[in-house]
Amino acid sequence: MTVKAYGAHASDRPLQPLEIARRAPGAHDVQIGIAYCGVCHSDLHQVRSEWAGTLYPCVPGHEIVGRVVAVGAQVSAFRAGDLVGVGCIVDSCRHCQDCDEGLENYCGHMVGTYNGPTEDAPGHTLGGYSQQIVVHERYVLRVRHPQGQLAAVAPLLCAGITTYSPLRHWKVGPGHRVGVVGIGGLGHLGIKLAHAMGAHVVAFTTSESKRAAALSLGAHEVVVSRHPQEMAAHANSLDFILNTVAAPHDLDAFLRLLRRDGAMTLVGAPASPHPSPNVFNLIMKRRTLAGSLIGGIPETQEMLDFCAEHGIVADIELIRADEINTAYERMLKGDVQYRFVIDIATLAESAGA
Amino acid sequence: MTVKAYGAHASDRPLQPLEIARRAPGAHDVQIGIAYCGVCHSDLHQVRSEWAGTLYPCVPGHEIVGRVVAVGAQVSAFRAGDLVGVGCIVDSCRHCQDCDEGLENYCGHMVGTYNGPTEDAPGHTLGGYSQQIVVHERYVLRVRHPQGQLAAVAPLLCAGITTYSPLRHWKVGPGHRVGVVGIGGLGHLGIKLAHAMGAHVVAFTTSESKRAAALSLGAHEVVVSRHPQEMAAHANSLDFILNTVAAPHDLDAFLRLLRRDGAMTLVGAPASPHPSPNVFNLIMKRRTLAGSLIGGIPETQEMLDFCAEHGIVADIELIRADEINTAYERMLKGDVQYRFVIDIATLAESAGA
Repeated sequence: MTVKAYGAHASDRPLQPLEIARRAPGAHDVQIGIAYCGVCHSDLHQVRSEWAGTLYPCVPGHEIVGRVVAVGAQVSAFRAGDLVGVGCIVDSCRHCQDCDEGLENYCGHMVGTYNGPTEDAPGHTLGGYSQQIVVHERYVLRVRHPQGQLAAVAPLLCAGITTYSPLRHWKVGPGHRVGVVGIGGLGHLGIKLAHAMGAHVVAFTTSESKRAAALSLGAHEVVVSRHPQEMAAHANSLDFILNTVAAPHDLDAFLRLLRRDGAMTLVGAPASPHPSPNVFNLIMKRRTLAGSLIGGIPETQEMLDFCAEHGIVADIELIRADEINTAYERMLKGDVQYRFVIDIATLAESAGA
Repeated sequence: MTVKAYGAHASDRPLQPLEIARRAPGAHDVQIGIAYCGVCHSDLHQVRSEWAGTLYPCVPGHEIVGRVVAVGAQVSAFRAGDLVGVGCIVDSCRHCQDCDEGLENYCGHMVGTYNGPTEDAPGHTLGGYSQQIVVHERYVLRVRHPQGQLAAVAPLLCAGITTYSPLRHWKVGPGHRVGVVGIGGLGHLGIKLAHAMGAHVVAFTTSESKRAAALSLGAHEVVVSRHPQEMAAHANSLDFILNTVAAPHDLDAFLRLLRRDGAMTLVGAPASPHPSPNVFNLIMKRRTLAGSLIGGIPETQEMLDFCAEHGIVADIELIRADEINTAYERMLKGDVQYRFVIDIATLAESAGA
C-alpha cells in the first residue's frame, strides 16, 4: 500500500511531502495508523547525512504512537484499535545473547526504524513521519496512557527509554543523589523519571533561564554549570549522573561531583570529541564513565508502564508536518520546550510527490 | 631513634644515604625492622617532584616487608618477630564512610607512606627505603608467605593490591575473559592474579619480545597490540580489562575489545592525557571506563592471604640500596623483570648523612 510521508531526497534538501510504500502485514506483523511522531535530534543528523551512510529518500521518525489498523494471522497480543508505540528498533537477529536477554538495542544486527536494512522497498527502513507503518509484533509496544496524552507519549519511545534505561541499569532509587546534565528533550524526561524513581535530583544547565523550569520538572536542586562555586558545592556528592549533552564539554567538571564508586553515563555522542577526561578523576574515587544506547524492547514496555503509572509524559510542542523544516532550525538553536511532535493527521493535507 | 635510609634532598639530586628519625612506638604502634622494599614507579615520580608538592628530604618506598621489632602496649594482633608488611597507606581519618568500610585508600585524609602529613619529624612521612618504620597497627599487614619468599612479597603491597582490588571489584572469576594491558610491575601481577581467580587471561603488550614471558606468567593468550589484525580478532570478547599502562595511548583500541557491559579499569595515570576516547565505543555496548586506586587495608590483607594460598609473588630483581639511582634509569627504559626490590640489609653499609 502507499501512504503519505514527509522526508528528504538528499542531504542538502529540505523535507517535503512524499508517497512511500508499506508492505502488506505478514503473519507476525502489526499495521499501525500513526497519530503522532516525535522529532528527535537523530532525525536531523540522519536526514542531513551528518552521520555516514544516509540512504535517500530518507523518512525520519522513531517516536511513533498510534492505533493498530490490522494484525497478521499469528499475532495474538495486539488487535485493531489498540493504542501502540514503536521506538528506534523495528528488527534484530532475534537469536543472539543480546536478543535473548531482551537487549535488542545492543544486537549487532539491530535494524533502526529508519535507514536500516530491509527487504521492503526502497531497500531501507522509512520512519514515522508517515501515515502508517508495518512492524513485526516483537517490536511493538503497548501504550496504557489515556488517549488524550498520546501526542506527549510519543517522545517516550526514544527520549524516554534512552534516559530510563541507564537510570534503571545503575539502580537509581530512594536515597540516591542523581545529577541530570542538560535540560532538553532527553534531560527533561531524565528529571521526571529520576524524581519518580525516588531519587534526589540535581539538574545541571548552562542557562540561568532554565532554573525555574528545571524545578517545575521535578528537580530538587538546579546548578548553573557555568558557576564554579555552585559546582564545587556538589563535589563528591552524587551517586549517579545522567549526562544528556551531546555537544563537546568538560566531563571532568561533572566527574568531580561523583562520590566514590559513582558513575556518569553519557547518552549523547558528540560530533567532535569531548576534551579528554582526567584519569585522576576516575582513579581517585573509583569512578566510572559509561555509555548507554536507548533500551531493549521489554524495558521500553516497562518504561511506558512506569510512565503511565506515574503520569509521566513529555512536555511537547505539537506541530504540523509542513512545519518540520522550521522545527529543525529551532531545535538547532535549542528553542523547543522540550520536544516537537508532529501531528500526523496533518499529512493528509499534504500534496505527496 | 635514628635509622639509616636512602633518599633525596632535592628533585634534581640523586638518592643518597641519609639518617632519619623514627618516633618511639605509641600504644597502638608497630615498630618494624624492614627487610626489603619494592621500587614503584611512583617513588621516582615523587622523588623527582614530577607530581606537585614533593617535600624534602624525600625517602620513597611503599612496598615494605620485614619483622616486628616491638609493639605498643595496646597492640594485640602483632608481636615481636612476626612477618609483616606495610603498603601505600600509614594513616587515614578512621571515622569517615570510606574508613568505616575499610576503604582507607579513598579516605580524603589518607596519609601516604611517604610525603604525607605527620607530626613526626620532619613533618612529612618518610618511606621504606630505610631500616625501620613505625606504623599504627591498623595499617600493618600480616605476611603468611614462607620467609624465603619475603623479598618477592614486597611488591604485592602496592603493585599487587593495585591490580587485585579492581579484579575483585569487577568480580573477575571463572568463565570471564580478562584482558591485562601492559606487562610490567603491575601487569605481570595482574596476569598471575587473574589466572589464579580462574579467568581466561589475554595479555596485551606492544613488544613481540614479551610474548613468551606473558605466557609463562599465566596468560592464556598474548596479543601484540601494534598488530591490528590480532586486536580485531578479540573485538567484543572481553568481560573486563585491567589497563596498567600509564603512558598516553589509544583507549579506544581496547574499549572495542569489551563485550556489552564490559569494563576497562585504568590503574595508571598518564602525565599528559590519553587521546580522548570515542563516546560511541561506550554507548554502543554500554561499556564503562573506570579507575581504581590501590586498595583498602582489609582487602590488602585478603590479597596477601590469597597470594600466600596460591603461591603468588612478584618476579623481582634484588638490588643493593646504592644501586637505586641506576635502577631508576633502567625502570625508565622498561628494563626490569618485573620489579626492583631493595635488600634493606645493604643500608647498614651506607655512610649516612
